[in-house]
Amino acid sequence: MKVGIIGGGQLARMLALAGYPLGLQFKVYDPTSDACAGQVAPLTIGAFDDGAALCAFAEGLDVVTFDFENLPAASLRILSERVRVAPGPAILEVAQDRLAEKSCAQSLGIPCGDWWEVNEFADLQRLLLERPGDYILKTRRFGYDGKGQVRIGGGRSLDAAAALLQSQSCVLEALVPFEREVSIVATRAHDGQMVFYPLTQNQHVDGVLRVSQAPAAQIEGVRELAETYVKAIADRFDYVGTLAVEFFQVGGRLLFNEIAPRVHNSGHWTIEGAVCSQFENHLRAICGWSLGRGDARFRCVMENYVGDMPPVDSIFASGDGRVHCYGKKPRPGRKVGHMTTLFSLPVTCP
Amino acid sequence: MKVGIIGGGQLARMLALAGYPLGLQFKVYDPTSDACAGQVAPLTIGAFDDGAALCAFAEGLDVVTFDFENLPAASLRILSERVRVAPGPAILEVAQDRLAEKSCAQSLGIPCGDWWEVNEFADLQRLLLERPGDYILKTRRFGYDGKGQVRIGGGRSLDAAAALLQSQSCVLEALVPFEREVSIVATRAHDGQMVFYPLTQNQHVDGVLRVSQAPAAQIEGVRELAETYVKAIADRFDYVGTLAVEFFQVGGRLLFNEIAPRVHNSGHWTIEGAVCSQFENHLRAICGWSLGRGDARFRCVMENYVGDMPPVDSIFASGDGRVHCYGKKPRPGRKVGHMTTLFSLPVTCP
Repeated sequence: MKVGIIGGGQLARMLALAGYPLGLQFKVYDPTSDACAGQVAPLTIGAFDDGAALCAFAEGLDVVTFDFENLPAASLRILSERVRVAPGPAILEVAQDRLAEKSCAQSLGIPCGDWWEVNEFADLQRLLLERPGDYILKTRRFGYDGKGQVRIGGGRSLDAAAALLQSQSCVLEALVPFEREVSIVATRAHDGQMVFYPLTQNQHVDGVLRVSQAPAAQIEGVRELAETYVKAIADRFDYVGTLAVEFFQVGGRLLFNEIAPRVHNSGHWTIEGAVCSQFENHLRAICGWSLGRGDARFRCVMENYVGDMPPVDSIFASGDGRVHCYGKKPRPGRKVGHMTTLFSLPVTCP
Repeated sequence: MKVGIIGGGQLARMLALAGYPLGLQFKVYDPTSDACAGQVAPLTIGAFDDGAALCAFAEGLDVVTFDFENLPAASLRILSERVRVAPGPAILEVAQDRLAEKSCAQSLGIPCGDWWEVNEFADLQRLLLERPGDYILKTRRFGYDGKGQVRIGGGRSLDAAAALLQSQSCVLEALVPFEREVSIVATRAHDGQMVFYPLTQNQHVDGVLRVSQAPAAQIEGVRELAETYVKAIADRFDYVGTLAVEFFQVGGRLLFNEIAPRVHNSGHWTIEGAVCSQFENHLRAICGWSLGRGDARFRCVMENYVGDMPPVDSIFASGDGRVHCYGKKPRPGRKVGHMTTLFSLPVTCP
């Protein structure tokens, strides 16, 4: 089968590397000529909103998927008249808009922290007068890896918030005094069957994921909650493929943070750590094949390389971590690779 | 770093797939346009004895390696004046010739079964009159996967043997009443450091490897022998990269069978089953990097698909085996893929 991937970043790259052993062939579409997935699969250069170019790209493909969610949903709709697109465009429109995303979560009974729609700076000022406290103002659209976010409260200036609201509508989120951030990665097959990966505990720095540990410790009760929530979302959209949902854990509760309608950074540990990785299962789902098990084979610690990669040989010298270079040029704040260190799972002796 | 691979079969394909996560880039050289590694890396089509084409291919590469041993050593010598070639051409000339290979093994103190050089049919007839018994006649050169071999003894006609001797010089091997076939895969770094993978037990059908089990059971004593033997060979050639040596086990002895100066089918289980795979370690060696550990993380059973691949979804339905399609057209006797099934290693409880 021939698979097209819209977006040529590290997720597309790892999808292709997971798919070649399954006998799949790949083509990648990206606006930039140095998209890193282009090092491992033929790259077509074109704009994400160029419907004609996208349709030409889709010629001869069996299925098209994508590696990031900020694509024009209209482009995917045009494509889906020509070729099978999985997951479908509907979830993109929700995941692209924090307001729609939170409304969707709440409509499915998934609790969120307190939040408000904010369109004007005057609205923000009024809200802060009524309810002083600590908040994060986030743009409704096009935020990722900490971009489009401003901390509010603790005497901080509101200048950055004013600037953000000049650019676009926002949501104001009350800062959640969470114990930890966790995410669940899952894959849903075309027939509705689901595979859940173990809960992952994540640490972000400046909004960028730095470290994931999986399976997360002390997940009694919350694992079931996370599975219920991700299943509700996936079923709502008749989702086909891998997706992730991020939560804040507060006591025994999970508060919704965001949906990623794609393979996810917090699931990279599954390449070596799970029976079948999030990448392979995404491909198996979109190809209409049965899914592999998501059980952990190891306890894993995944660390991102942000900004620049150390020389690989210096990483090799420091231990047995499994190295993943993305083939990207260094740039501050950019994810350029990751390393997963594997530990034996605890064994129960009689 | 940019790596060139001469030969574009499944071994080149799996080398590239192992090397992309290390940040390596690949080019592949093969005489056929449908060489399966060409699906995962840019393919240059050219004859193996076309020195000019090989040198053009090597332009801009940091290191060149190969995925099979029946290359003209002269071609590699020409190449090695332009670019680093690893492993070096010397071991190729030995591994290409069963007579040179056995003589080399014996000169290093590695025991072989009884064997004789046979150049004429009359020599063969004389030998069989003197020593009736069961033998295999093998061409000195260009034999692989059971090709160029004829069974002798037990009342079989000598017609096929006569035909083989018309084509080229042969060696006659006394059939060894072995208990099992085992192989050792090892990697030698540029500084002489070596990593040994656990001994693998292999089953061949019609000269083609079908099943490998690793780590082989009951290896007390023979593991050390195998490590001593492969180290003697690797040191003799100042070898850089992964190599394999196949043996017949007879009681506590290992009788030399053959050298493969490359990654080897009996090491495919290391992709999922070892801390660092034979493919990654080959690349780390030829790039001048330090090696990863070869310890087994699982007990593995690797089965080859020969002739044709079943549909992958039917394999998925049957269990959690890790599937590797090579992207090759079906053909009787051709290796087109493999599957590795992982089992927990025995745990010693206190």
